[in-house]
Amino acid sequence: MTNINHHYLELQGSYLFSEIAKRRTKFVQEHPDAQIISLGIGDVTRALPEAVIQAMHAAVDEMARPETFRGYGPEQGYDFLIEAIIEHDYKARGIDIQSNEVFVSDGSKCDVGNIQEIFSADSVVAVQDPVYPVYVDTNVMAGRSGAFDKTENRYTNIVYLDCNAENGFKPALPDRKVDLIYLCYPNNPTGMTLSKDELKKWVDYARENGCIILYDSAYEAFIREKDVPHSIYEIEGAKEVAIEFRSFSKTAGFTGIRCAYTVVPRELKAYDPQGNAHLVNDLWNRRHSTKFNGVSYVTQRGAAAIYSPEGKAQIAALVDYYMSNAAIIREGLASLGLDVYGGVNAPYIWLKTPNGLDSWAFFDKLLSEAHIVGTPGVGFGRSGQGYFRLTAFGSRDNTEKAVERIRKLSL
Amino acid sequence: MTNINHHYLELQGSYLFSEIAKRRTKFVQEHPDAQIISLGIGDVTRALPEAVIQAMHAAVDEMARPETFRGYGPEQGYDFLIEAIIEHDYKARGIDIQSNEVFVSDGSKCDVGNIQEIFSADSVVAVQDPVYPVYVDTNVMAGRSGAFDKTENRYTNIVYLDCNAENGFKPALPDRKVDLIYLCYPNNPTGMTLSKDELKKWVDYARENGCIILYDSAYEAFIREKDVPHSIYEIEGAKEVAIEFRSFSKTAGFTGIRCAYTVVPRELKAYDPQGNAHLVNDLWNRRHSTKFNGVSYVTQRGAAAIYSPEGKAQIAALVDYYMSNAAIIREGLASLGLDVYGGVNAPYIWLKTPNGLDSWAFFDKLLSEAHIVGTPGVGFGRSGQGYFRLTAFGSRDNTEKAVERIRKLSL
Repeated sequence: MTNINHHYLELQGSYLFSEIAKRRTKFVQEHPDAQIISLGIGDVTRALPEAVIQAMHAAVDEMARPETFRGYGPEQGYDFLIEAIIEHDYKARGIDIQSNEVFVSDGSKCDVGNIQEIFSADSVVAVQDPVYPVYVDTNVMAGRSGAFDKTENRYTNIVYLDCNAENGFKPALPDRKVDLIYLCYPNNPTGMTLSKDELKKWVDYARENGCIILYDSAYEAFIREKDVPHSIYEIEGAKEVAIEFRSFSKTAGFTGIRCAYTVVPRELKAYDPQGNAHLVNDLWNRRHSTKFNGVSYVTQRGAAAIYSPEGKAQIAALVDYYMSNAAIIREGLASLGLDVYGGVNAPYIWLKTPNGLDSWAFFDKLLSEAHIVGTPGVGFGRSGQGYFRLTAFGSRDNTEKAVERIRKLSL
Repeated sequence: MTNINHHYLELQGSYLFSEIAKRRTKFVQEHPDAQIISLGIGDVTRALPEAVIQAMHAAVDEMARPETFRGYGPEQGYDFLIEAIIEHDYKARGIDIQSNEVFVSDGSKCDVGNIQEIFSADSVVAVQDPVYPVYVDTNVMAGRSGAFDKTENRYTNIVYLDCNAENGFKPALPDRKVDLIYLCYPNNPTGMTLSKDELKKWVDYARENGCIILYDSAYEAFIREKDVPHSIYEIEGAKEVAIEFRSFSKTAGFTGIRCAYTVVPRELKAYDPQGNAHLVNDLWNRRHSTKFNGVSYVTQRGAAAIYSPEGKAQIAALVDYYMSNAAIIREGLASLGLDVYGGVNAPYIWLKTPNGLDSWAFFDKLLSEAHIVGTPGVGFGRSGQGYFRLTAFGSRDNTEKAVERIRKLSL
């Protein structure tokens, strides 16, 4: 008899978005004429930028001729893409990143899911609550979570950092020893950000307490305000304590094309049981080159094209489009007297459900009375109860319609 | 202090192909005029089939318009690809596979590397020797290998199944209890295959002993002989004990495009510590949807195109091209009195090094005297010592030149 990884048995139910899909499907079956507007799952809807389209066509044509055909590429990504990333995302902001510190991948979900593998199985993990479920679930699979406590609605060994209206959705530092801290800014699901001073507090804490910060910055392109850091490496000393995850998914409409990257600075160290230091970069490189075989050449050419002058203008217009949607939702709901958060430096609007409804009750109300699909905050963790997430990724028309429909509800 | 996954410290040296690249680079620096021919790493060189190119262009164009744009696809793959796989790779051979048993991914290296995660950390792993290094290294990372014994040149807890000229490179059944058995047919690196009766022996063994077979069939498209099974599911009862890995990399020139798939039958069960049965399919689905976000839509359209009548004809021509190379190498070396294996149902030729040279000595001789890069057999394991792998993936011209150069060596 072959045994399973029994930690999988601790995983709780099905993924949040399956439950949403189930309720939506049921409603549509019962109300086939309803015009559903989805502001739920964080998926983009606009076409790929023209510069990306051109670059991908050209790359496909290269693959059609033996002289220009490309087989296996470097597992870490092609130099043309890595150099563009370094130049435009880091050097332009005064940050010095070397080419062997950038790892191109097929998605930040994969990278934030896989990164925990290179750390000890008994590492103590801290996550924000509400939180992107992948951080927690991948640590459950690795046996770091302990059992799920149904009374607490939390895993025993995970350290949860509460984010709520009282603390402005900016968590307090951990009250006990942790090893790995997942931070996500601009935040999914709350849409909130940290200022440089606020992020510095975390970097300093990690340096003083020997922690590593796993900094998910998939929504960096949506930052509008001046004091909000675009990279954790804008903070002094961050290279000694932080791994940064970036994605082309939302920046350039790549959710169906799959490209992202992760920066693992050579300054970052972790320790073996004898107390010897090891470069985390070396470990990740070994993991990446052993279990991954690089991103499609066609995709990488498409990603590199967003750094051209045309590409930059096109993705700026794309981000503007979604952020105008965000403003429409944010201002529309605020004008109804709802408490809204996010939507200023992020494509997510986080709202307090009216009249003390719980998250799923508000989901059902919005679906049945306004035919709008959103995401119940409690799906992101206990602290999300009584909150609700809407995304700015719809079309303008649908976004405006959705706000009008909500306006007509009795809230 | 954050601790590392200390199992990584047991990994032995750098990956085989890094050492090859190092020696090659050194030689080229010292002999800048040498015309190197690489028959080393198993990477394809011919252009993508025209049907694939057309399908990818059309898919890129779909991504250029909001009406046809695709964001996140199903993590398991689009139905249009899964249905084509089932129809042409399985149903056409009388094998019944359901759509929820097929998982499309970005590469078999990823899948064979990740599959071990869903099994218990104390599973006993058996591999053939010589072996594709990823099977071993990913189990080392997961802590299943035990320490590396330098005297034995093997990991203590891995069960090695010797393949050598004496047993026709067909290993004996394990002599002790194992849980997971990695089998690769057509084999990389030896190029050898099993007949249906020979494979049935393994399926029966797994059924009788409660093992799971991880069947890597990335080179299936190269099978020419009639009695060689194309899928392990041609063997009765295999669905209860086997996971099958297939790839578009070599079949259709996708090494730089990235697409593969894995079949996990719903009949396959593994057990928790209380002895309860669980569907391995459910576990893999959970892993796949939590840590992976699907393959590029453009890539999947390209993959599906190989199942069209034009696509089928084009990949048949591609495989024929490489297999003619294989015949040239195989017959050329045999005519020199060398012992050669493989190259009949696989793009790999496995040869006994002449005059008792060890694998690396023959590598250096071939590089320095014939300017040919191949792969030392010992790089695939202890039983590969004294053997050498050449691949059929070069151009016709280079393949013929390589054989001519070897003909002129004093062997």
